[in-house]
Formats: sequence, C-alpha cells, structure tokens
Amino acid sequence: MLKFKRAYSTGLASAIPPAKLKYVPTSGTYPKGFLASGVFVGVKPGNTSKPDLALVTSDRPASAAAVFTKNKFQAAPVTFSRKILQSKANAGLRSVIVNSGNANAVTGVGGLEDAASMARTTDQRVGSEDSTLVMSTGVIGQRLPIQKIVDHIPMAYHQAGDSHRHWLDCAKAICTTDTFPKLMSRTFELPSSPGVEYRIAGMTKGAGMMAPNLATMLTILATDAPIAPSLMNPLLKYSVDRSFNALTIDGDTSTNDTVALLANGAAGGNEVSSEQSADYEALKNLVTDFSAELAKYLVRDGEGATKFVTIRVVDGASEAASREIARAIARSPLVKTALYGKDANWGRILCAAGYALISPPGQPVNDVPEIIPERTSVSFVPTDGSAELKLLVNGEPENVDEQRASEILEMEDLEILVRLGTGDKSIVHWTCDFSHDYVTINGDYRT
Amino acid sequence: MLKFKRAYSTGLASAIPPAKLKYVPTSGTYPKGFLASGVFVGVKPGNTSKPDLALVTSDRPASAAAVFTKNKFQAAPVTFSRKILQSKANAGLRSVIVNSGNANAVTGVGGLEDAASMARTTDQRVGSEDSTLVMSTGVIGQRLPIQKIVDHIPMAYHQAGDSHRHWLDCAKAICTTDTFPKLMSRTFELPSSPGVEYRIAGMTKGAGMMAPNLATMLTILATDAPIAPSLMNPLLKYSVDRSFNALTIDGDTSTNDTVALLANGAAGGNEVSSEQSADYEALKNLVTDFSAELAKYLVRDGEGATKFVTIRVVDGASEAASREIARAIARSPLVKTALYGKDANWGRILCAAGYALISPPGQPVNDVPEIIPERTSVSFVPTDGSAELKLLVNGEPENVDEQRASEILEMEDLEILVRLGTGDKSIVHWTCDFSHDYVTINGDYRT
Repeated sequence: MLKFKRAYSTGLASAIPPAKLKYVPTSGTYPKGFLASGVFVGVKPGNTSKPDLALVTSDRPASAAAVFTKNKFQAAPVTFSRKILQSKANAGLRSVIVNSGNANAVTGVGGLEDAASMARTTDQRVGSEDSTLVMSTGVIGQRLPIQKIVDHIPMAYHQAGDSHRHWLDCAKAICTTDTFPKLMSRTFELPSSPGVEYRIAGMTKGAGMMAPNLATMLTILATDAPIAPSLMNPLLKYSVDRSFNALTIDGDTSTNDTVALLANGAAGGNEVSSEQSADYEALKNLVTDFSAELAKYLVRDGEGATKFVTIRVVDGASEAASREIARAIARSPLVKTALYGKDANWGRILCAAGYALISPPGQPVNDVPEIIPERTSVSFVPTDGSAELKLLVNGEPENVDEQRASEILEMEDLEILVRLGTGDKSIVHWTCDFSHDYVTINGDYRT
Repeated sequence: MLKFKRAYSTGLASAIPPAKLKYVPTSGTYPKGFLASGVFVGVKPGNTSKPDLALVTSDRPASAAAVFTKNKFQAAPVTFSRKILQSKANAGLRSVIVNSGNANAVTGVGGLEDAASMARTTDQRVGSEDSTLVMSTGVIGQRLPIQKIVDHIPMAYHQAGDSHRHWLDCAKAICTTDTFPKLMSRTFELPSSPGVEYRIAGMTKGAGMMAPNLATMLTILATDAPIAPSLMNPLLKYSVDRSFNALTIDGDTSTNDTVALLANGAAGGNEVSSEQSADYEALKNLVTDFSAELAKYLVRDGEGATKFVTIRVVDGASEAASREIARAIARSPLVKTALYGKDANWGRILCAAGYALISPPGQPVNDVPEIIPERTSVSFVPTDGSAELKLLVNGEPENVDEQRASEILEMEDLEILVRLGTGDKSIVHWTCDFSHDYVTINGDYRT
C-alpha cells in the first residue's frame, strides 16, 4: 500500500515515505554539457526550507522542443515558452528555469512580464539571448513574488553542477505535493555512431491537477545527443503521446502542463537529421520508453493511490479510438472506486468502454464502429506472470472465480486487458484508483 | 447534510432518511386512464421484501416515445423497446413494465428473449399486441430469473390502480440504491382547450451508474393530454436535453438509461398535432420544467452527496459548447472534492472550463472560440437571495472575501455562475459533490 501523509504545501520538506524510496535513484549518468541546480527561494508563503527554484542549463546551444497543455487558460510561462521556441525555430536554446509554489496562471499582462523577467535574468547569467524556457507550478491566480525569484536566479546559476546531487536537488525543487522526486538517467547508442555513448536525463513532477490550488505536470528531458532542430517537435510529440499523454490520475488537465526536451549534442557523433533514418527510429523509441518510465512514477505518486493499473486496449480499429476507450475507463470514478475496493466489477469497465466514443448528451447518436459488443473481451492480467482471468469473452460474461479475482486485486500492480476485435491497433495507458485519501487530500485540506 | 446509511442492495426496504421525507409527496393528481402498481418478486437474491416489479398501463392506446442510453453496450430492454417504438411509429402503446435488481445487460440472445417475454406477458394481460415498453435496472451480466418475473406480471396487473398509493408503490418498485422514491404529479391546461384539466405524472430512479453493479437512470412520464405520435420524439428529446441530460452525478453513462413518455389523451380536448402550435410550445415547456424538477431529485439523492450545485453557463456562443463546459465542471473530481471541502477554489472551476472543449491527448490542438480567457467570469451565487460573490471578472482574479465564500459554501444549495462573454446562449446544469461516502458506497461495499 502506498499510504503516507502528504506534506500538502511544502512538498518534500518532510521525508520521503519508505515505500517510495526504491523509486529515488542514488546515482546516475547525466548528459554532458548540462548543469542543474535546485535552490530555496520561498515562493509560497509558509515555505521556509523546501527548494523551489530549479535550473537546467547547457554550456552550448541546444535543439529544443516542448509540448504544452491545451487548456484554454494557459499560464504565462506556457505562452512565453511557446513563443520563444517558435521564434528560435527550435534551435539555440540553453536553459529551463522553473519555480514551484505559484503557477503564474490567470495573472494577466503582469504575469507575462514576470515570466519574461525570469527568462531574461537567466539569459543574462548564461550569457545568451532568448534562450530560456520558463515553467511554473502552484497556486493559480496570484502574482509571483518576482523580485525574490529574480534575485535568486544568479545563485541558482552559480550552484549548478553536473553531479547526481545537483540533478536530484533540481528534481526536488520542481515538486509540489509529490511525495518523492522523480528523476531518471540512462545511456544509449545510436546506429550511425557506434562507440559513442549518449546520455539522457529526465525529471518530472505532479500529474493532472494534483493538489489544492496546485496544478501541473512538468517534465524536463535533456540529452547530449545531436538532434536537428527540425526533428525536435515530431520526436517529442510522438514520445509524449505514448507516455505522459497515456496516464490518468483524475482526468483534469492543468493550465501549466509542459514537457520540454533539450538536446545539446555535447557527446558528439553524427547529427540525427532525418525522420527516415535508423538513428531517428532508435531515438524515437528510446525517448518514448524513457518518458514512459518517468510517467509511471507520476501514477505511483497519484494522490491517495493504492493501485498502479495498466489498461491495455488491443485489437482496435485505431490508436485514437483505443486511447479514448482507455481514458474513459481510467477516468471513471466507478471503475476507480471498484479498484480501490478490490472488486472485480467488469460491468463498470465495459460500461466505461461503451460510452467512451459516444456523442455528448443532446447531440445526435453517432456510429461507433470501433466497438462491437459481440467482439469485446475483458480480462484481468496479474503482474506476477500467472494466467489472465477472463471476465468477458466476445461479449459473453464468464463465470468468474471470485477467489482468483480477489487474489489479483490484492496486488498493488495489475492490468486490465480489453480486446476490441475490430482491428490490429494496440495502446497502453496507466492509472491509479480513487481512495478515501484522494477525497481527503483534495477536499479536507483546510481542516 | 444529506448523510444516511444507504441500503445498498435492497433499496427502500429500510426507512426513508428524515432529511429526504420532504421530497416524497403524500398525495397527487394522476393522469386519467393510467393504472400503476409496484409488487414484490425477489429478482435479486437476498431481496426478501422490497417491491421490484413496476407496471404503468393505460386503459387505451397511447402515443409514446423514449430516449435511450447511447452506451454501445445497450441492455436487452433498451434494444427491445427501441424496436417496438419504431415498429409502432410511436402510436398504440399501452404499458411500461420494469424490474429492478437485475439490468438484463450483456446477457446475449437469451436476454433479448427475456425482455420480449416480459412485454408479451404484459400485452396478454392488457389485451393488446406489441404495446409494452420494458426497462430493467440492477446487476450487469446475469440472466433474469425470468419465470419468476413473468409469473408475477398478472399480479402486478391485477393490483394496479390510480390512487396515490398505487403510483408511490410503483415509484418504489423501480428503485435500487435510491434512498427515497422520486414521484411527481401536476395539472395543466393547453391554450386551445381552455377549461380542460390535463395531468402529468412522473417517476424516476438512479442517476448515471450509481451503485456497485447497479446501473441506470429510469424515468416514466405519463399524461392524459392528447398528443400526435409524430410529435412525441421531438417533444421528449427537447425536454430530456434540458433536464435528465443536464445533470451529472459521476459522469458515468449506463447501459440501461431510459426515459419514456406516454400520452393517452384520456382527458379529451384538441389533439396537439403541430410543432408550430401554441399548444406544442406550452407542452414543451411544461414537460421540460416537470422533467427538470424530477431530475433534480436524482442529484439530491446522488451517492454520498452533501451539496446540490447548480452550474449556470451564460453568454455563450452555443448551447452545445456551454453544456460541455458545464459538464466538464460537474465531472471534475477536483471541483467536486473542493465543493465537498467547502473551498472557494475557482482555479479548479476555470481549469475545467478551459479543458472542456479541447481535443483529446494525441490529437492536434483545436480552436476553441467559445472560450476567451479575458472575457470569462466566475461567481458563486448564494441561494438565499444575497449578492453573488465574484471570483473572477473578465479573466482577472478578484480579491475574494474568504469569510463570505465560506458562508456560501456552508449552504447545502449553491450556484456556480460562469459568464463566457462570447454570445447570448445560456444553459443550466445540476450536480453534487464527491465525498468520502461516495468512495465508501462504491468501493467498500464488500467489507
């Protein structure tokens, strides 16, 4: 069980819960030419010690891309960072500066100036123009204590380094209600440059709208592989669709969600410059797998979560339809509470699949060729390697062994497998359950 | 507060909670020519006393229409009733037969035969062919104890009557986890037949997917006004879109949801036969208002609900967009837990509005002209007639009086008002909060 008292407003000021320690690395191999730091500013009133300003910076210009929230109320740092990337055509970026404790969202023109001011100050220390992306996470609707933040950026720059401790401090500084920092690193090779060791590091925080007045999933990925600016957007979009977009905590989408990727080429080797190359193919899979591993940490730290649930939708007519079906199952409060209650309630899973693609109330009935009840099957797949438990086969309910169902549902990790039988497309999605603690964390925090 | 221990599987076998008694009528004026009954069968194993077979029947042929769930996994009674209405072109219907305790959903060909058998038996007693609609609600994936049900239909017919007690028994028999029966009746006049008193009665149960393995919102409306069969579909669709489709408990859409309207003309007067007539206009508004009142009872009985929340979205570009925005707010677990926690968290309301109309993850960013952040305003409107509390005005956060916010949030009833400023369309939606009890009812019921 993942139970632990969450430090609602100061994140990691308190200790990491023992059950989560296994997810926090004690060493790493970090990409060349990147420096990282996490320092204390006190952005949120009441935060007296938790690091809340994070910097990742490259000693040379890097290719960069970011995927942003589609929420119509986009926070100032989102608007600012999108513009910078467009104006620079994904080339010549150096830094990402992040504050936690205040989202700088719904803050009007002043908020945009604050985001620009954070970037400008970072650029000045780094010695480069228009080369900084900005991220913020925290309370919506309040202006940043901008002077305080700007005054600490030089310190963040001077304290930046390339050791594991530096990266871990950085990963801690972006956290809000997270109970553990989420940091990963890995080495890899590319087909056209054998013998060259490349590195990638990544950190992430939050998921969906996770906490009282605190928003946002933020992710920074950095690699020393050389990647052409023109490939950055397709590379990141492909990976995010199959990782950070493939998870559901509560289905809310924040005003600040951002995933950024920087590639500075410091490790040398041949530049990856064509979408048709074997290098690009390898890189695409590498970044997707890496991002998926990182994304799973978000689910493991879902508020009140007691289960890590993989939803696999296979044999579908299209990836898009299969994803919507998985998302509907992952969002359903009835499925989520049944998982929490360890109830093999396949009726709720089927029901959510059945409404995933239908038109909204008041709109005409639409055709949903992606689902044919007589071809739909649902199983629980245990994560210990034992046989799957079939609940529904081709639209016909199985006589379920309740004893066996209970065994599977006792496990922290489990998989829901939905076979659509309408095509050959498969997707995977991750989610957690809804517990009493979710309601407590998000509803009772004033008491 | 609406706290009360719910009788999970036997519905109203236990007493009605004192706080809900005010919603249960002690008398009524019921439409002429209709008889109603509710009798005990014992459909669900373990139910030893709660009435679970309901019949509404007209002594003459009636015009009829029904609106059904769009869920792709449609229950047998849904498929059956849709076909009957089509084959009869909305004319010559007599009865609605309903069982609770088993949804007859995902039950294959056998399930369809069971639904047909319930209708056939009812038709035989009534002395009419192909004139019965069927509804079921309860466990998914199990065959009905059909012989037992069919054997009790003659009894249900013989016990049917036109008194308040008969209608109330009927309203009780369709309930599952409802804590009180939801029954209403009203008299009205139509412009072209002054002096003729018409009557309408309605009953409803459940909302969305409300309970462990128990599904479905079911509604029966009956009037003695004379309405042409061709007007029944547009009349009912218009009303349902603005009543039963304008509420959210948990956002799940069941396999069995059905709203049926029967009009037998027993009160006489001129037949309503044109969509352009003043009679139709009056009738449309009457049925909509009546249905909305009935629908609100469902929200008041939402599982674990402690709040009745009206979401009003005004000055929108289209009704459809405004409804989607209201639904996103009503579905958001973060908004719902904040309401439960009495937290004036307008950031979450705004955030839900901001993602209501965006494309799904993995799809290209879409234009959402219906929302312009700088024109969006959010207020709490207290239900005691005192002044609204502005939280956001034209995209700028207000300096909120937390004391006043707390006062408003202490009330059981409150309204969230969203002004879009992009048009002149307005809609209203009703929802409740998410409490610990919701999780308990839907997650812990085995323990």
